[in-house]
Amino acid sequence: MPAYQPLTPDIAAELRLIVGDKNVIYADPEKLEDFAHDEVADKKLAHMPEAVVRPASAEEISAIMKLANRERIPVTPRGAGSGLSGGAVPAEGGIVLLVDRMNRILEIDRANLVVVVEPGVVTNDINAAIKEDGLFYAGYPMSVESCFVGGNVAENAGGGKAIKYGVTGRYVMGLEVVLPTGEIVQMGGKRVKDVVGYDLLHLMVGSEGTLGIFTKIILKLQPLPTARADLLVLFRDVPSAMKMVPLIMTNGRIIPTAIEFMDRLSVQTTCKYLNEDLPYQEAGAMLLIEVDGSSEEQVDREFETIGELCQANGAIEVYVATNATTQERVWAVRRNIAEAFKVFSPVQSLEDIVVPFAQIPDLIPVLDRLSAKYNLLMPCYGHAGDGNLHVTLVKKPETPLEQWEDLEHAVLVELYKAVANLGGTISGEHGIGSKRREFMPLVMDETLIRLQKQIKSAFDPNNILNPGKIFP
Amino acid sequence: MPAYQPLTPDIAAELRLIVGDKNVIYADPEKLEDFAHDEVADKKLAHMPEAVVRPASAEEISAIMKLANRERIPVTPRGAGSGLSGGAVPAEGGIVLLVDRMNRILEIDRANLVVVVEPGVVTNDINAAIKEDGLFYAGYPMSVESCFVGGNVAENAGGGKAIKYGVTGRYVMGLEVVLPTGEIVQMGGKRVKDVVGYDLLHLMVGSEGTLGIFTKIILKLQPLPTARADLLVLFRDVPSAMKMVPLIMTNGRIIPTAIEFMDRLSVQTTCKYLNEDLPYQEAGAMLLIEVDGSSEEQVDREFETIGELCQANGAIEVYVATNATTQERVWAVRRNIAEAFKVFSPVQSLEDIVVPFAQIPDLIPVLDRLSAKYNLLMPCYGHAGDGNLHVTLVKKPETPLEQWEDLEHAVLVELYKAVANLGGTISGEHGIGSKRREFMPLVMDETLIRLQKQIKSAFDPNNILNPGKIFP
Repeated sequence: MPAYQPLTPDIAAELRLIVGDKNVIYADPEKLEDFAHDEVADKKLAHMPEAVVRPASAEEISAIMKLANRERIPVTPRGAGSGLSGGAVPAEGGIVLLVDRMNRILEIDRANLVVVVEPGVVTNDINAAIKEDGLFYAGYPMSVESCFVGGNVAENAGGGKAIKYGVTGRYVMGLEVVLPTGEIVQMGGKRVKDVVGYDLLHLMVGSEGTLGIFTKIILKLQPLPTARADLLVLFRDVPSAMKMVPLIMTNGRIIPTAIEFMDRLSVQTTCKYLNEDLPYQEAGAMLLIEVDGSSEEQVDREFETIGELCQANGAIEVYVATNATTQERVWAVRRNIAEAFKVFSPVQSLEDIVVPFAQIPDLIPVLDRLSAKYNLLMPCYGHAGDGNLHVTLVKKPETPLEQWEDLEHAVLVELYKAVANLGGTISGEHGIGSKRREFMPLVMDETLIRLQKQIKSAFDPNNILNPGKIFP
Repeated sequence: MPAYQPLTPDIAAELRLIVGDKNVIYADPEKLEDFAHDEVADKKLAHMPEAVVRPASAEEISAIMKLANRERIPVTPRGAGSGLSGGAVPAEGGIVLLVDRMNRILEIDRANLVVVVEPGVVTNDINAAIKEDGLFYAGYPMSVESCFVGGNVAENAGGGKAIKYGVTGRYVMGLEVVLPTGEIVQMGGKRVKDVVGYDLLHLMVGSEGTLGIFTKIILKLQPLPTARADLLVLFRDVPSAMKMVPLIMTNGRIIPTAIEFMDRLSVQTTCKYLNEDLPYQEAGAMLLIEVDGSSEEQVDREFETIGELCQANGAIEVYVATNATTQERVWAVRRNIAEAFKVFSPVQSLEDIVVPFAQIPDLIPVLDRLSAKYNLLMPCYGHAGDGNLHVTLVKKPETPLEQWEDLEHAVLVELYKAVANLGGTISGEHGIGSKRREFMPLVMDETLIRLQKQIKSAFDPNNILNPGKIFP
């Protein structure tokens, strides 16, 4: 582990020369505090930066990285700060490199069906800009209205539409990257295929800001779907709900846009919170199934097929939502789960486990056992279509706060081991960051961890870029 | 560069102990010669192995790799030998490690929609095995009836359906890999999402057998399309044809399964070769457009929309093929291009360039200029939907064979530089192998080449696995 040096006033002055006076925050704890955390609830992962720097170009970032290597100052890239694993938190202090000024959509290339953006563009703004061209960017993290696309690429953000559209990486065709040592390099481009050398482009995707800083991102576009329907389906238990996932794809020959899952506790708590009058008391599980396409007829046929399949396989109720108002109502249940449990207790750990989707029913007894053994709530909801579940550890009021840390750790170890036994792993879309790094050895061979450290060293010999992340 | 040692009779005896007597070929030049080349026409890339070894398990491969490291013997993994860049040729001699005995479909997991296969399974056999379940593996290299899936993963094989279905890597969910140093590791699994650490899984995909040997491959499946139609459309010139690619996707809101492209020379030579009576004399370019889906109505609507769009945008003729006989006829033209030019001259270089698809019209004048300047034929055909073109350098009869090597080199340098200027690169799906390694610096920054070499060293410190590939 290299020893880092403090960020002195002289170095701050050099940073000001690079990016301009008004784009450096230094020696101002009140302003710096905003950049000491992300959206992780656990405050012990927070860490104060020594400076926040807001560059406007790859060249400025290159100069910052060269300075940081020379002076041995850690640099942590940061987008909207909406991450859920501590990835944008300066775990070792030093510089937070904020990309919010690099927020331009540089080019909409309609002939090649690609868009070129800077990392600070809000993800949803891409779709707003290309909508009138009949085009669509399919990356879809749940925080699409606030997150930055640079962070999406760094975390390989997933979301609810992965079953049909895949995750962020599928759409990343090219990157301009400032390497940790300051070189500016191009990977990929506007070409759909490229097998020249190792796939460094997709090694960068999901590398959590530890291998480089993206300064241009080339994303693939596709035709904008023009029709959509949502089905909210209640089932008596989890196995009945989950067996629909392969059935819809094999018997129905349909790949839905989303299949969201909520367990009994999530449905009941959220319906109560929303005063929703669904017959949730009987429901042991709920699916929210979305289909989209380029024609009303196709979407109608698909939601009818899915509805009939669900009815024939023991659904209690099937609600179909084909207009914006009813769609908003059915999605409100799914979107308000986290809020509903925050009202119950703000002390929680939002998890991001993933299992083969047919193994979701096998996970439910594990959650029941752990929540009884450790006396906590463990609602389970998330993306059934891809097996990615946001199990949440929620403290009960009677548990003393000083016991929670040990309890949480014990539950996580047991949960992660169970997930690994089911063929799953500890993060599907939120990343390892600092939140999960100590648990990496539970799900990954030490040889693979060693190889990843060697890759990190090749890119970043001084361990300057985003230290304290991923590796245990 | 480490010095390799000769494969002595003692080492051959050790190899026989590992895999059994009958699974080692040694000191038998006639039998070894079959493994000295792949499908590259250029004989100077051929190289004799010292032994061919046919293991049956990951454990046997691990033992071979440990022996090879101890004795400093190169090992080159090989599937069906149908590659087009020399990837499976033992460029430095040593052992060819043939995976043809590892040819079992290990599991069809219908509930999780995945299949687990060994590397020696013929790609098409996967689809034959899952068809009755209504399932489909969408990887589709043109040699699908003979190539091995292990080679597909090693080369990240593409093919004609990438526009809709992507390339092989999209479907690789998990791998069991024997590392160059002999460790057996698991990457990914049956889970759809996984962001734990760097994406080593997709670093392996397309690494051309230089980072590890795959012993189990987990592939994602999807619903089998039940309807299909093909359109063969003639255009007066290349720009008219190519402008259809984005139009079909934006105005038509359709992502076709394939959009294959043939230039004037390819169309005319192949139609003459086949005695095909299409009005090809007028045609400056031809598109072959395929659509598929889960209902006849949807496919009918799509091919009608595309046909009308082509008519409205200057197509000379639109043929629609909706049954197997007519589909076979339209695809025969596309499939016989290579044969038609082999009849003309077997001395050729099959290229694999890729450009942003809207830049294909800009490439045509380059080909015209080069073929005139160097007096050779340069037919251009391939996958218009993704810009991946199999431009072929074909020697004219009057050019002396002894001049061809220098001429070919000069043409390739000019062609590759032009392709790079158009935002393209030198291989879309065939790989670098030994065929293109000297040209890597034309399209890739030396920093990125250095980083790739460091990754290779981390995985393979003795440079035992498939040396002489990729790196210039």
